Amino acid sequence: MRHLLSSADLTRDDVRMLLATAAEMHEVQRRDVKKLPTLRGRTVINLFFEDSTRTRSSFEIAGKWMSADTINITGKGSSTSKGESLRDTVMTIDAMSVDCVVIRHMASGAAQQVSQWVDASVVNAGDGTHEHPTQALLDAYTMEQRLGSLEGRKVAIVGDLTHSRVFRSNAITLRTLGADVTLVAPPTLMPSGIGSWAAADGLTLTDDLDAVLADGPDAVMMLRVQRERMSGGFFPTPREYTVGFGLTRDRLRALTAANPGAVICHPGPMNRGLEISADAADAAQSLVLNQVSAGVAVRMAVLYHLLAGEEVAA
Amino acid sequence: MRHLLSSADLTRDDVRMLLATAAEMHEVQRRDVKKLPTLRGRTVINLFFEDSTRTRSSFEIAGKWMSADTINITGKGSSTSKGESLRDTVMTIDAMSVDCVVIRHMASGAAQQVSQWVDASVVNAGDGTHEHPTQALLDAYTMEQRLGSLEGRKVAIVGDLTHSRVFRSNAITLRTLGADVTLVAPPTLMPSGIGSWAAADGLTLTDDLDAVLADGPDAVMMLRVQRERMSGGFFPTPREYTVGFGLTRDRLRALTAANPGAVICHPGPMNRGLEISADAADAAQSLVLNQVSAGVAVRMAVLYHLLAGEEVAA
Amino acid sequence: MRHLLSSADLTRDDVRMLLATAAEMHEVQRRDVKKLPTLRGRTVINLFFEDSTRTRSSFEIAGKWMSADTINITGKGSSTSKGESLRDTVMTIDAMSVDCVVIRHMASGAAQQVSQWVDASVVNAGDGTHEHPTQALLDAYTMEQRLGSLEGRKVAIVGDLTHSRVFRSNAITLRTLGADVTLVAPPTLMPSGIGSWAAADGLTLTDDLDAVLADGPDAVMMLRVQRERMSGGFFPTPREYTVGFGLTRDRLRALTAANPGAVICHPGPMNRGLEISADAADAAQSLVLNQVSAGVAVRMAVLYHLLAGEEVAA
Repeated sequence: MRHLLSSADLTRDDVRMLLATAAEMHEVQRRDVKKLPTLRGRTVINLFFEDSTRTRSSFEIAGKWMSADTINITGKGSSTSKGESLRDTVMTIDAMSVDCVVIRHMASGAAQQVSQWVDASVVNAGDGTHEHPTQALLDAYTMEQRLGSLEGRKVAIVGDLTHSRVFRSNAITLRTLGADVTLVAPPTLMPSGIGSWAAADGLTLTDDLDAVLADGPDAVMMLRVQRERMSGGFFPTPREYTVGFGLTRDRLRALTAANPGAVICHPGPMNRGLEISADAADAAQSLVLNQVSAGVAVRMAVLYHLLAGEEVAA
Repeated sequence: MRHLLSSADLTRDDVRMLLATAAEMHEVQRRDVKKLPTLRGRTVINLFFEDSTRTRSSFEIAGKWMSADTINITGKGSSTSKGESLRDTVMTIDAMSVDCVVIRHMASGAAQQVSQWVDASVVNAGDGTHEHPTQALLDAYTMEQRLGSLEGRKVAIVGDLTHSRVFRSNAITLRTLGADVTLVAPPTLMPSGIGSWAAADGLTLTDDLDAVLADGPDAVMMLRVQRERMSGGFFPTPREYTVGFGLTRDRLRALTAANPGAVICHPGPMNRGLEISADAADAAQSLVLNQVSAGVAVRMAVLYHLLAGEEVAA
Repeated sequence: MRHLLSSADLTRDDVRMLLATAAEMHEVQRRDVKKLPTLRGRTVINLFFEDSTRTRSSFEIAGKWMSADTINITGKGSSTSKGESLRDTVMTIDAMSVDCVVIRHMASGAAQQVSQWVDASVVNAGDGTHEHPTQALLDAYTMEQRLGSLEGRKVAIVGDLTHSRVFRSNAITLRTLGADVTLVAPPTLMPSGIGSWAAADGLTLTDDLDAVLADGPDAVMMLRVQRERMSGGFFPTPREYTVGFGLTRDRLRALTAANPGAVICHPGPMNRGLEISADAADAAQSLVLNQVSAGVAVRMAVLYHLLAGEEVAA
C-alpha cells in the first residue's frame, strides 16, 4: 500500500488489517501518555484547500502521537493563491523530501492526480464530491465496535448523495465488508448514473425514509446538508427537507421501535434541526463522537501502514 | 485544579503555588536548551476564535517547551464557519482524547460553558469582556519580581474598564494577593454594577487620574483602548482620551516624582500616543516586555499543574 | 554569524562554509529517518507578513528535522492587524526568549531593522524588493551541484529586476563566488541606479536575451513576473513580455545549441507560458525542483550555524 486514494482500492483484507491496527492505536489513545516513536523522522504534510477542523486536526494529532513531523499548508496563503498550478505546488512540496501528503481539494480526482506527480505517499482527505476513504474506515470501525461484524448488517445512508464524498466511500467500504446498503435521497439529490452502480454493486435505492426505518436497519448514517446547496433548487426549503429526510424525534422513535439496537452516525459538522434532530444527535444510539474518536485511531493506522517501514506487510 | 476559568476560582494559596512554579519555569526559559519532558504525550489544543499573537504563541511555546503536542485551531477555517455550534465543535475536539483546550472566544462565559461539555482541562485565554486569568497571573508575577510582595501595595488600573477582561481578572487576583486597587476610568467607561463590586471587594473608583498618580501608586496598569470603541460614543476623540486618561510624558514625570519606585504595566498590544506615550512605554519603569516574558513561564506553570499528573498537589 | 540579513554580509568563506554544511544536511534529507538532535530546545519563529508556501514550509521543515521547536505567526491574525507597530510586535516575540526569528515582510530593510530590536538571531526570508539571501545560497548550491565551481561561469538573470529581491541576493552571492553575471531586462524593469552598481561590481547589463543565450551561458535564471505589476505599465501585455523575455521553446533550443550543459533555474512559483515555457520548466536542464530540495538543506545549514552553539566556528 503506497497511497490511500479511494475506498475501491482496499480489499477486504486491507480493510481488516487497517481496522485491526486502528484498534491497537485506539488503546494508545486511552493512555495517559499518548506517544509512539513509530514515525520519528517522517514528515507528513497536511495540504488543505478547503476548510476543515476535524479531519485536519485528526491527521495532525495522529501524526504527532506517532512522533512524525507535521506541517500544515492551507490553500489560502499558499502559492496557488499566486496562480501556481496544483501540479507545481505539490511537486514543490514533494521536492522537500516529505514522506506523506494528506490532501483535501475541491476537485474530484485531485488526490489521484497528485499521486502521479509525487514520490511521497498520498492520502485522500476528501476530493470534491468523489471520495473520503479514511471517513469510511472510521465509520466502519465505529459501527463494528457496537454491532460486531457488518456482514449482512443493514445500513441506510440518507441525504444529499449527489454532493457527498462521504457517501461514496462509505458505500464502497460497507459493501467490501458485506453489509446490505440502502441509499435514501430525494430524486433531485440522487446522483446521475447511480442506477447502474447500484445494480452492479447491490445497493438499494429509495426515497422513502420511513419505509427504510420501519424495516429496522442496524445503522442509519445521516449525511450533512451543505447549506450552500439550498439555493441550487435541489430542495424547496429546509423545512421540507426535514419533513422528508430528517432524522426527527418521531423517526428516531420509529427506528428504535423497529430495531432497539440500531445506531446512528453522522460525519459532522451536524446541522441540528435540519438533517438530524437534537434528540437523535444526542441519543444513546448516536455514535457521532465515537466516530470522531475513531478518526484519530484510523488515521494513525493509515499513516502507520503507509510510512512505518518495509517490515510492515501491506 | 482541573480547569482555569476565572481568577475568582484561585485562592491565595493557588496563586502562590502557580507563581512559585512560574519562577522555576522562568529559570528554564533562561537556559540555552529550553526543554522539559514533563508533558510528553499530552496534547494541548489552542482554540482561538479571536486574533492573537502573544497569547496564542505564549501558550504554544509553553506547551512545546514541556514536550506537549500542540495543535492550533482558529475560528476562521474551522467547522464553526460551516455553522456548527460551539458545543459540537468543542465536543468534537474533546472526542479526539486531547488533554487540554486553551480557548479564546468573543462571548463572555464561553470558557465556563466549554468546561461543562468536555473531559479535557480548559484554560480561559480570554472570553469576551469577562476574564483572562493567565494575564492576571503574569501581571502579578511581573509586579512581584520588581516590588516584592503585593500585600498593601497600591495598584491603579486605568482605562476602558467596561470592555476589559484584563481588568476584571487583574482586580480579582490583585485583591487576592492583598493589594489596594484603584480603578480609574471616565464615567462612560465604568461598567454598570461596578459600584457594588467595588464596595464588596474594597476597590476604589475614580475618574481623576492625576490625583491617583500624585498619591504615588506602586504600579500603574494602563489598559488598551480598543479603537473600534471610538465610534461608539464612549469618548469624543482620541486626543481627549489622551488628555484625560493617557499616561503622557507629564504624567510619567508626576508618577516618578510621587513614587520613584513605581512601575508601569500594559497588557499589549499598545496604542502608543493614545493610552500610553512612547516615553512611558519605553521608560525604565515600564515592565511591558517583562510581562510578555513572564507570560510563557506562567502558562508553563498553569499547564504543568493542570496536566502533569496526579502526584502534583493542586 | 549572528544574523543572516543580506547576501552582502557573507564573505566567500562564509558562503563556502554554509554550502559545505548544506551538503551534509542534504545527506540527512536522503535518509529514511530525517532527524538530528542538533537544535533541541531551541525555538524558531516563522514570522511571515506575506503569503508563502515554499519558503515558510522549507524553514519549518529545516527546524523540525533538527529538533527545534517551530512556531508560525502570520501577519493576518497577529497583533499588527490591531495596529501594533512592527517594533512592538517583534520585541514582544523576542521577550518570549525565542532563539531565532525568520521574517518575511513587504518593506525593504525590515529584517535589518528587526535585528536591531531583538536578542534573537534574525534570518531575512525576503524583505520587500531588497533581498532574500537563503534563496541565493540555495541557487548557488544547486548550480554547483551540476556545474561544479561557479568561478568564471557565465550566469544570466532574466526578467523583472526592479521588483526582485531574488535577483539582488543572487547577483551578490554569484559575484562573491566569482561568476560572471549578466542581467537581462526590458529598460522599464531595470532598477534605477543599477548602472553604478553594475560598474562597481562587474555586472553586465542588456535587454537582448537572444544575444545572451547565443553566447552560451552556463546557467539562466528566469525571474517570476509578478502579475500585479502588469497593470503598472511596466510592459504592455503578457504576450509581448514572453516574446521579448520569456524562455520559450525556441530559446531553450538556442540555449542548448550554444551550450549543451547549460542549466535553467527559477525561484518559483512559475508562471508557465509567461516568463518560462512548459518545455523549459520541465526540461532535463531545469533545476527548479533541485532548487526546492536544496532549500531545506541550505536552511538547515543556516539555522545550524546561527543556533547550534558556541563550538561552531562562524
